[in-house]
Amino acid sequence: MHKPVILITNDDGINAPGIRILIEIMREIGEVVVVAPDKPQSGMSHAITVSVPLRLKKIVDKKDYKEYSCNGTPVDSVKLGGKIIIKGKPDLLVSGINHGSNSSINIIYSGTMAAVLEAAIDGIPSIGFSILDYSMKADFKGSEKFIKKIAENVLKNGLPSGTCLNVNIPTIDKSKIKGIKVCKQAKGYWKEEFDERKDPHKRDYYWLTGVFQNGDKDSDTDEWALANNYISVVPVKFDFTAYEAISVINKWKLNA
Amino acid sequence: MHKPVILITNDDGINAPGIRILIEIMREIGEVVVVAPDKPQSGMSHAITVSVPLRLKKIVDKKDYKEYSCNGTPVDSVKLGGKIIIKGKPDLLVSGINHGSNSSINIIYSGTMAAVLEAAIDGIPSIGFSILDYSMKADFKGSEKFIKKIAENVLKNGLPSGTCLNVNIPTIDKSKIKGIKVCKQAKGYWKEEFDERKDPHKRDYYWLTGVFQNGDKDSDTDEWALANNYISVVPVKFDFTAYEAISVINKWKLNA
Repeated sequence: MHKPVILITNDDGINAPGIRILIEIMREIGEVVVVAPDKPQSGMSHAITVSVPLRLKKIVDKKDYKEYSCNGTPVDSVKLGGKIIIKGKPDLLVSGINHGSNSSINIIYSGTMAAVLEAAIDGIPSIGFSILDYSMKADFKGSEKFIKKIAENVLKNGLPSGTCLNVNIPTIDKSKIKGIKVCKQAKGYWKEEFDERKDPHKRDYYWLTGVFQNGDKDSDTDEWALANNYISVVPVKFDFTAYEAISVINKWKLNA
Repeated sequence: MHKPVILITNDDGINAPGIRILIEIMREIGEVVVVAPDKPQSGMSHAITVSVPLRLKKIVDKKDYKEYSCNGTPVDSVKLGGKIIIKGKPDLLVSGINHGSNSSINIIYSGTMAAVLEAAIDGIPSIGFSILDYSMKADFKGSEKFIKKIAENVLKNGLPSGTCLNVNIPTIDKSKIKGIKVCKQAKGYWKEEFDERKDPHKRDYYWLTGVFQNGDKDSDTDEWALANNYISVVPVKFDFTAYEAISVINKWKLNA
């Protein structure tokens, strides 16, 4: 039987513990091709590289397992993996395991989830996995079976056109996980501050800091699921249109 | 009467002709604060700067007109403009005028529109303006009255919570513009190729190239509007949830 071709990327960089674990899990399911950034790319969102040329560095190139780093973003990695290494479409793209949450608003800043959306737009079934611990020493133990189950289900069932999955995993002891909840993105936001400092030359500089706030009290959200010891699965697609606002703006009679 | 405070940014950088024109138009309406990247940031999407400190450079600082450049992304510029310069929320954020289209799928890569979305998430009425010409010599003549009209309407009417506007302007002679159409984002995509080259040291490198494809035949899209000589206005909000897919994935019985 033909083994599925699985493209793997992330935004924490090719040496992050999270992607190493994801590679191990996916090698049990299919032929794996890794193309991931050569350095951390957190917060890069859907950025693409337009001002410098892209380069790939071969790390492993066997028949059933290939691994390359690139100097670009997570989205660049997806494009390079498909066009240059696989020379076609993988059967599945997985991204992560991200060190830190991509629930609620975090998805918009996330390079991990941008890679997943990029694949979905290109018609590739795709899943992003994140664990709620920013540390490079995050404990992934016990997550493996859930990750494998979700990936196998996507390979078996496919996903609706243009749709991908955003999976977040709580940091509790995995034996305490109550199950998997399919849910919507919570309406959360970051209450941000700049940490204002002066350099030795007395010039101001700023570090962005912030605290996540979940203003969404609904119980069908990813934040609710995670706070209640579930793994959250949000089906995600790229359509920014605010359909309900079209009639509102038409009332302004902009052509009058 | 209190003049509205208008924050302006873009992704082509503070010296791009597009933002200079936008500043002129907005100074007729309100007190203007400009915070924009000190260099081109096209394709930066919703990226934020986390690995280097942010700096602001004062260019003008009068009572009714302030202009600063920053070393960050368009989204960083919105955050710095609010927290550091205005020390609160502006009445309106406008971004652009972008040199090049942000219709259809282009919004996902766009720093110009990421700034607009960032403001909307923060509860600030916001609009992105783009012209369908990537050249730094793009001809904006005749666009001014439409831009002013849309901005004045947003200030007067407000926008539904979390919603912002993505405005694209065709490159035709502005006297031939048929009007303003409120529409949805077309389902287009980029058919991409990598231009593969070898450097003088015989190492491979890649430039991303592509041709935009509109596979969407609906006539209520931004692509249709632009192709038919209308200015397109798409109301946009940030919610990636694919609601219709929730029941589909629940049928997989992931907890069985």
